[in-house]
Amino acid sequence: MSDQSSSDLLTQKTSRRRFLRDGGIAALAVGVACKAAAPPAAAAHQPNPGQTGGTMGPHDTAAGSTQSAADAMDAMHEKGIKAFPAKTAGEGNQLLAPTMQNGVKVYELTAKKIQWETEPGRMVEAWAYNDQIPGPTIRVKEGDRVRVILHNQLPESTAIHFHGLELPNAMDGVPFITQPPVKPGQSYTYEFTVPNSGSHMYHSHHNSAKQVGLGLLGAFLVEPKTKSEYDSPDVDQVFILNDGAHGYTFNGKSFPATQPIVAKLGQKVRIRFMNEGMMIHPMHLHGMHMTVIAKDGWPVPAPWKCDTLNVAPGERWDAIVNCNNPGTWAFHCHILPHAESDHGMFGMVTALVVQKA
Amino acid sequence: MSDQSSSDLLTQKTSRRRFLRDGGIAALAVGVACKAAAPPAAAAHQPNPGQTGGTMGPHDTAAGSTQSAADAMDAMHEKGIKAFPAKTAGEGNQLLAPTMQNGVKVYELTAKKIQWETEPGRMVEAWAYNDQIPGPTIRVKEGDRVRVILHNQLPESTAIHFHGLELPNAMDGVPFITQPPVKPGQSYTYEFTVPNSGSHMYHSHHNSAKQVGLGLLGAFLVEPKTKSEYDSPDVDQVFILNDGAHGYTFNGKSFPATQPIVAKLGQKVRIRFMNEGMMIHPMHLHGMHMTVIAKDGWPVPAPWKCDTLNVAPGERWDAIVNCNNPGTWAFHCHILPHAESDHGMFGMVTALVVQKA
Amino acid sequence: MSDQSSSDLLTQKTSRRRFLRDGGIAALAVGVACKAAAPPAAAAHQPNPGQTGGTMGPHDTAAGSTQSAADAMDAMHEKGIKAFPAKTAGEGNQLLAPTMQNGVKVYELTAKKIQWETEPGRMVEAWAYNDQIPGPTIRVKEGDRVRVILHNQLPESTAIHFHGLELPNAMDGVPFITQPPVKPGQSYTYEFTVPNSGSHMYHSHHNSAKQVGLGLLGAFLVEPKTKSEYDSPDVDQVFILNDGAHGYTFNGKSFPATQPIVAKLGQKVRIRFMNEGMMIHPMHLHGMHMTVIAKDGWPVPAPWKCDTLNVAPGERWDAIVNCNNPGTWAFHCHILPHAESDHGMFGMVTALVVQKA
Repeated sequence: MSDQSSSDLLTQKTSRRRFLRDGGIAALAVGVACKAAAPPAAAAHQPNPGQTGGTMGPHDTAAGSTQSAADAMDAMHEKGIKAFPAKTAGEGNQLLAPTMQNGVKVYELTAKKIQWETEPGRMVEAWAYNDQIPGPTIRVKEGDRVRVILHNQLPESTAIHFHGLELPNAMDGVPFITQPPVKPGQSYTYEFTVPNSGSHMYHSHHNSAKQVGLGLLGAFLVEPKTKSEYDSPDVDQVFILNDGAHGYTFNGKSFPATQPIVAKLGQKVRIRFMNEGMMIHPMHLHGMHMTVIAKDGWPVPAPWKCDTLNVAPGERWDAIVNCNNPGTWAFHCHILPHAESDHGMFGMVTALVVQKA
Repeated sequence: MSDQSSSDLLTQKTSRRRFLRDGGIAALAVGVACKAAAPPAAAAHQPNPGQTGGTMGPHDTAAGSTQSAADAMDAMHEKGIKAFPAKTAGEGNQLLAPTMQNGVKVYELTAKKIQWETEPGRMVEAWAYNDQIPGPTIRVKEGDRVRVILHNQLPESTAIHFHGLELPNAMDGVPFITQPPVKPGQSYTYEFTVPNSGSHMYHSHHNSAKQVGLGLLGAFLVEPKTKSEYDSPDVDQVFILNDGAHGYTFNGKSFPATQPIVAKLGQKVRIRFMNEGMMIHPMHLHGMHMTVIAKDGWPVPAPWKCDTLNVAPGERWDAIVNCNNPGTWAFHCHILPHAESDHGMFGMVTALVVQKA
Repeated sequence: MSDQSSSDLLTQKTSRRRFLRDGGIAALAVGVACKAAAPPAAAAHQPNPGQTGGTMGPHDTAAGSTQSAADAMDAMHEKGIKAFPAKTAGEGNQLLAPTMQNGVKVYELTAKKIQWETEPGRMVEAWAYNDQIPGPTIRVKEGDRVRVILHNQLPESTAIHFHGLELPNAMDGVPFITQPPVKPGQSYTYEFTVPNSGSHMYHSHHNSAKQVGLGLLGAFLVEPKTKSEYDSPDVDQVFILNDGAHGYTFNGKSFPATQPIVAKLGQKVRIRFMNEGMMIHPMHLHGMHMTVIAKDGWPVPAPWKCDTLNVAPGERWDAIVNCNNPGTWAFHCHILPHAESDHGMFGMVTALVVQKA
């Protein structure tokens, strides 16, 4: 959050510690609050009543060279965090509005090669649906009639597999098993009645290690006919992990360009984890636990709690966070080399910001 | 499925799409049906009533070189799929019949070096029990008295650990902890009363990273004294994953030589996943979900559903598939580089074929 | 166990098999029993009534070179196992007694660079709290007021994150988000009321891929206000996995310097698995199953059984072993290259020793 308006807000804020006055994340909380039209005061890092903030003790003399090396490293760490959430071109997971044709929800997806900015200044070759990574979010209801028209503007053949949907075989999207490949320049139409609810994905199933790695993937969310207590969260967050040619990413971006999840104190956030990568990522949330409610779109027999949720390639996990602890909470893959180097945090790091009302 | 009889069946079949008429997997479904003595019509890819098959749209002109490169890649993909299920020499998991001696079920396992064909034309050095990989399946009942005689014809010492069975310590198979190593040329006899039921494994526990990687492993299945609703499935499938010296394999074979699971519409398939490799493999089934019923041979407190099941080394997971969706369904590890390259599918790919009655 | 006293005990023991008389692990069981002041007889490897030990069959003649190569390999394997549990300098996880100040439990942790012996003769550079790896165990009760004073004697800045505790944001330990970094020579004080119970961790959250990899980690155990049936086990074992710069370790040591878990027949052992590494480790226990009771400190809705428990980085799993099967049981990561090479067992191997009463 480096825009002027939030910086202005920041300088008006009274903070008892110089750290917070200069800190990037303090700015983040304000900036985010600003976006959400909450009063600036909501974002102040106030210790809980009865709790004291940490106290820095006396500073022994360290050797000058050690001190300056430590300062130099810390400056790199601080710079990354101050930049968060950094602006980049392009945003994935944008909700795709269908056109209606005789009661059928029609979605058009164009696959083509683009340049994608994963973090400020880092442009990568990407293969994308509708110029975004992850591709646009398709959100429908169980029982809807849906048509998905794929336009292939890639230099390779492709196809779409609707991962998790229990479709008729001819709609399964596997070239040479359920359909011919969709050649460069061709279009292909899928049409089906949505058979099961939950958090699913769509992605290429042709030369997939490459094509999915380059970005041909998106969320396919199906609201159930009968809503449960979890189906009306205050915040409903798609959270797609990837680790291919674009580096370690959440929703197509790397820290500091990852976007925080923002909620108000007392709200419930539903996080829909989806792993489109090649590695397992144990996602760790600070400050609050997650209550796991669904696996691959299917409700678990009994919700269970954790703060570190292991998400394997192809899996989807839905979890609820009851945002009862205010502050900016680190949220990252706990395979630490996916999240931090001696140059600071990078890759699979974001934050859950819980704003005081 | 490249044998003449299935090809003959294939050419007699009326198919509305050229793709299916030429397709290898269409041949697969017929060929498999043929093996199972089902009428050829059962294998036709008929779209569900009320569902339309995918529709190829108009073909824009792509640059000639792009088109021919895409065609060349697709041809490689098609070739692999047409070859499935490819014939290779050797078949693992063959049920081993015991000899009975005074009420004891006696099994003999000879460990020796062999050549093993993992896919057509790819011969690898293997260390095998009874000349097969995975070794022969031992299937007994809880409470059975069992004797396993190991004959070591390998150039190294070895030993057998019965992974998951809660045996007396002296039968645990760990050299220098519970027994001496079994030297080249020696035999060693294990004898025990089978203490617990479920899906277990036997494998070498000496120089095991090498010996298990080369093939010294097999399934040890124990039927419970009291059967549950899951203990009489229509199809009972051992499914052993490996990723060592032989590449990425299911039951000792790599795609296209992996063997499909075949069931009729309405049948229930029990899949007994076992990971004998060094990596985690999230197994993804298309078209239908799996209901997980047991972990390491122990019933789970409440069965849970998924379409992507993460199987770690040493783990066993039992799952039921209710085959209610006809067709040939891809079934693969979702770490995509274990399943597909730009040369087509390979390694950890097979199919679940659900035939219409 | 190479000390003279246990060897003396060993030679006095009557054993029917030469293997056991010469074996290192037989010595282990005695040695451990000795430590625990149990009668030496308790450790004898007696087969269960009605069970026979394994029987070595006739020895065919193998080629001389094969035989000697096998013997040479076996000698390396035997040497490693005989050395177990090997003595090394330093012991991690030592319970840290607090000082009481006005009702607050005060713990002091000094982070500094040390030399650490992971296995006999292997000294590595380590960054440690209070000169031990894992750092000292902090064990408190839910609701306790706790103060942790960090003294940084490292050449880098650092900070402590209390992984799993749902603390006020200012106590979360993430430099530039919730506090400034603690510079070399500085001290920093955390203070909070312990909000939730279970098996948690504390570790560096600054340059963490390096700092945690080098040893800045420890267990933070919180006893619940209301005890469950699992909260008074006979043996309560912290079990921290790591795989960074120090190699594959359990509680900071590599086999044969890992320490066994020792229990008497009929006792219950609670194992608190914590993964502070970068890889997933499926932990396999021989001879008995584990009943999983908690994930990340939260009780699971229904305990479930397994013999191979997959532990991902950042996760904690609590499991109960009902020690109903006497003997020395291998207990290891089932990614076999983390546990055994052709030079014998190494790294992530230990044993659970169940002594007869």
